[in-house]
Amino acid sequence: MFIARSETAGEWKAIATAISTIVEEATFEATPQGINFRGMDPSHIALIDLNWPNSAFEKYECSQPIKIGLKIEDFVKLIKRASTNDKVELETKDESLLIKFVNSYKREYLLHLIEPYTSSTPLPKISLNSKTVLKTKSLENLLDDIQVVSETVNISAKKDQMTLEGQGDTGHAKIVLDKTNEDIISIDIKEESVATYSLPHLLDIISSLSSVSENVSVEFSTKMPIKLVFKIGAYGIDLCYYLAPRIE
Amino acid sequence: MFIARSETAGEWKAIATAISTIVEEATFEATPQGINFRGMDPSHIALIDLNWPNSAFEKYECSQPIKIGLKIEDFVKLIKRASTNDKVELETKDESLLIKFVNSYKREYLLHLIEPYTSSTPLPKISLNSKTVLKTKSLENLLDDIQVVSETVNISAKKDQMTLEGQGDTGHAKIVLDKTNEDIISIDIKEESVATYSLPHLLDIISSLSSVSENVSVEFSTKMPIKLVFKIGAYGIDLCYYLAPRIE
Amino acid sequence: MFIARSETAGEWKAIATAISTIVEEATFEATPQGINFRGMDPSHIALIDLNWPNSAFEKYECSQPIKIGLKIEDFVKLIKRASTNDKVELETKDESLLIKFVNSYKREYLLHLIEPYTSSTPLPKISLNSKTVLKTKSLENLLDDIQVVSETVNISAKKDQMTLEGQGDTGHAKIVLDKTNEDIISIDIKEESVATYSLPHLLDIISSLSSVSENVSVEFSTKMPIKLVFKIGAYGIDLCYYLAPRIE
Repeated sequence: MFIARSETAGEWKAIATAISTIVEEATFEATPQGINFRGMDPSHIALIDLNWPNSAFEKYECSQPIKIGLKIEDFVKLIKRASTNDKVELETKDESLLIKFVNSYKREYLLHLIEPYTSSTPLPKISLNSKTVLKTKSLENLLDDIQVVSETVNISAKKDQMTLEGQGDTGHAKIVLDKTNEDIISIDIKEESVATYSLPHLLDIISSLSSVSENVSVEFSTKMPIKLVFKIGAYGIDLCYYLAPRIE
Repeated sequence: MFIARSETAGEWKAIATAISTIVEEATFEATPQGINFRGMDPSHIALIDLNWPNSAFEKYECSQPIKIGLKIEDFVKLIKRASTNDKVELETKDESLLIKFVNSYKREYLLHLIEPYTSSTPLPKISLNSKTVLKTKSLENLLDDIQVVSETVNISAKKDQMTLEGQGDTGHAKIVLDKTNEDIISIDIKEESVATYSLPHLLDIISSLSSVSENVSVEFSTKMPIKLVFKIGAYGIDLCYYLAPRIE
Repeated sequence: MFIARSETAGEWKAIATAISTIVEEATFEATPQGINFRGMDPSHIALIDLNWPNSAFEKYECSQPIKIGLKIEDFVKLIKRASTNDKVELETKDESLLIKFVNSYKREYLLHLIEPYTSSTPLPKISLNSKTVLKTKSLENLLDDIQVVSETVNISAKKDQMTLEGQGDTGHAKIVLDKTNEDIISIDIKEESVATYSLPHLLDIISSLSSVSENVSVEFSTKMPIKLVFKIGAYGIDLCYYLAPRIE
C-alpha cells in the first residue's frame, strides 16, 4: 500500500523532469520514511540522488518498502496536466500507478508500471574543496551567458571568489562571483581549484529545477566531479546532482 | 447588395477558423434574415451548421438571398489582421468580397470570390439521449487531458454523471463530471449511453471557438453522432457541430 | 583607446540587429565625435548610414579615429545577453572588443575583431518628393497588413495622402494614410509619386528598430529609392536606410 499526496504538482513536475534528463526508466523507492531515487545516465557521467522525506507530503502512507518503476517521460507528460492549484495523489494499484488530480474535477490517470531495477548505484566518495551557495535562477542565467560562446564552462575558485569562463570561436566569456553580489549567499574556498564541465548537462538539470528551488549549493575541486545540491520546497526535499569533469 | 458590419472581429475570426477545420471552400448564404453556413468535411464525418441572425450585426443590409463562395483559409488570414477594437465590414463587390477594418486607419482587403456550391447538406435526423451543458474552456481542458494518452475519447453517461475516458500505450485517463462541479451548468441523462469520438476533430472545433463561446451543450447517444451547440457572443449566434462516432 | 558606455543595452541590440539584416561583417568607425557605420548589402539594394554622436553615451572616450571590424551576428548574440537594466561598456583591447555588462555581476565578453574594410560607401545623391512622418510601430503594422497578400508594397502619394497597396493571388490590400490619423505626424507631398518596394526588406529593418525608434520619416519619389530615417533614443542617434525600388 503506497499513497502520497502533495499540495501542489510543482515539485513532482520539476523533479520528474530533472530525472528525465538522465534516464528513460526510473525506479523510485518508497519506504515508510519517504521516497528516494538514485540513478546514473547511461554513459555514467551524471548522477541524481533524491531524498524526499514523508514529512514533505500532505498525506503519506507506505507500510513497507516498495519499488516503483516508471517510464519517466510518460510520467512527466501526465503530471504536467495538473493545474497550479491541483493536489496530486499517487497510489500504487496492481501493476499501475494511479495519478489523481484532486480539485473541483475528478481527474485520474492510470500509468503502467515497468520492471524496477534492482542493482543500486553507489554515491561517489569524494571530498570537494570549494563551495558556493547562490540563487538557482541566477546560476542558470550565468551559465546561459557562458553558453553563448562555449559548450563547456571552466570554473575556478580562489580566496573569496569564483570565476566562470568559456571560450569558443566567437570569443571569450568571463563572470566573476564574490560576496558583494546579492545573489551569492556564501562562498567557502578551502583550496584553489579549477575544473571544466559540460554546459548542456548542467543547464538541463538547473532549468528543470529552477522553478522550485530557490538556492543551490555548488561544490567542486580540481579535476573532480561537480556536486549541485538543490533544496526544493519548504519541507526538506534534497536533490543532489553529480557531474563528471571534462578532461581536455 | 450585401453589407454586414460587426462591432468587433472576434466572432468572424473564431467562426471562420472553425469552418476552416472542416472545409477548404465555404459557401455562406446571406438572406435578409442573416447569414447561414452549412457544410460537411470531405469524408462526411463532421458537419457544421451556422445560424447568424441579422440582429447580431451592428449594421446589416441584404435585399435578396446571395451565395458567397470563399477560400476559407484566405479569409481567415485576412480577418486575423483586424485589431481588437476594429469594426469589421463585409461587402460584396463584383466578383469580390470587400473587407474593411473601420478604425483610425482605412484598411481594405478585396478577396476574390469563388464559385458557390449549390447542393445543400441535410441535417442528420437524430434524437440524442444525454445532454450536458458546461463551460467551453473547461471542455477543451478536459479533452486535452484525455488526449495525453489517447487519440479518441470514450464518453459514457448514466444518472447525473458523465464520464470521459481514454486509453493508450502510456496508460488510462478518466474524468468524471457531475453537478457538484461549478463548470457544469446542467446534466440531463434520459438513457444510459456510451460512444467513442475522435479527439483531434473535437479539439479543433472547440479550440477555434472557446474564445467567443462561454458555454457549450454536448449531446450524444450510444453509437450515434455527438452534437455540440456553441452559443457565440451575446446576440444569438448558434454554431452546431456534429461528429460521427468511431466504430471500433 | 576607445571606450563607450551606454546606460541601457536597448540601442545596441536594435542597431546591431538592423545592421545584421544587410551585412555579415560590419566596420564601425569611432572618432572623437562619435560612432558611424555605413554599409550596403551584397546585392547593393539596401544601404544603412548610422550616426551615433558621443553625446548619446554616458561615457565616451576616443582619442583618435579607429575602425572596428565585427562579425555582426556574433556581436548581436552577445549583446542580447544584456539585461534590461545593465549598462553596456565597449572597449577595444588588442585584437578584441571587450563587452562589459555593468550591473551587480561582473560579466565580460571578449569578441575577436576582424579586418575592417577600407573602401567607403557613398550616399546616393537623390532628391525625394514625398515625405511622411509616422509612428514606427504603426508603419510596421501597416506593412504587415500588406504582406498578407503580397511580397511587395506599392506606395503612391498625392496631395495630403499616401496610399499603400499590395496585390497577390489571394486578393488586394489597400491602406490610405492622411493627417486625420493620429499615428501620422506629418505628410508633405511636393509631386505625385508612385513606386514599388520589397516588403521583406522593409519589414526586416523596421521590426529591428521599432522598439527603440518612436517615429520614422518615409521619403520616396517615382521609381526612386525609398529613404527611412529612424530617430533612435533621446540623444540624437540617426539611422538612415535606403532601399532601391522594384522595377516590374
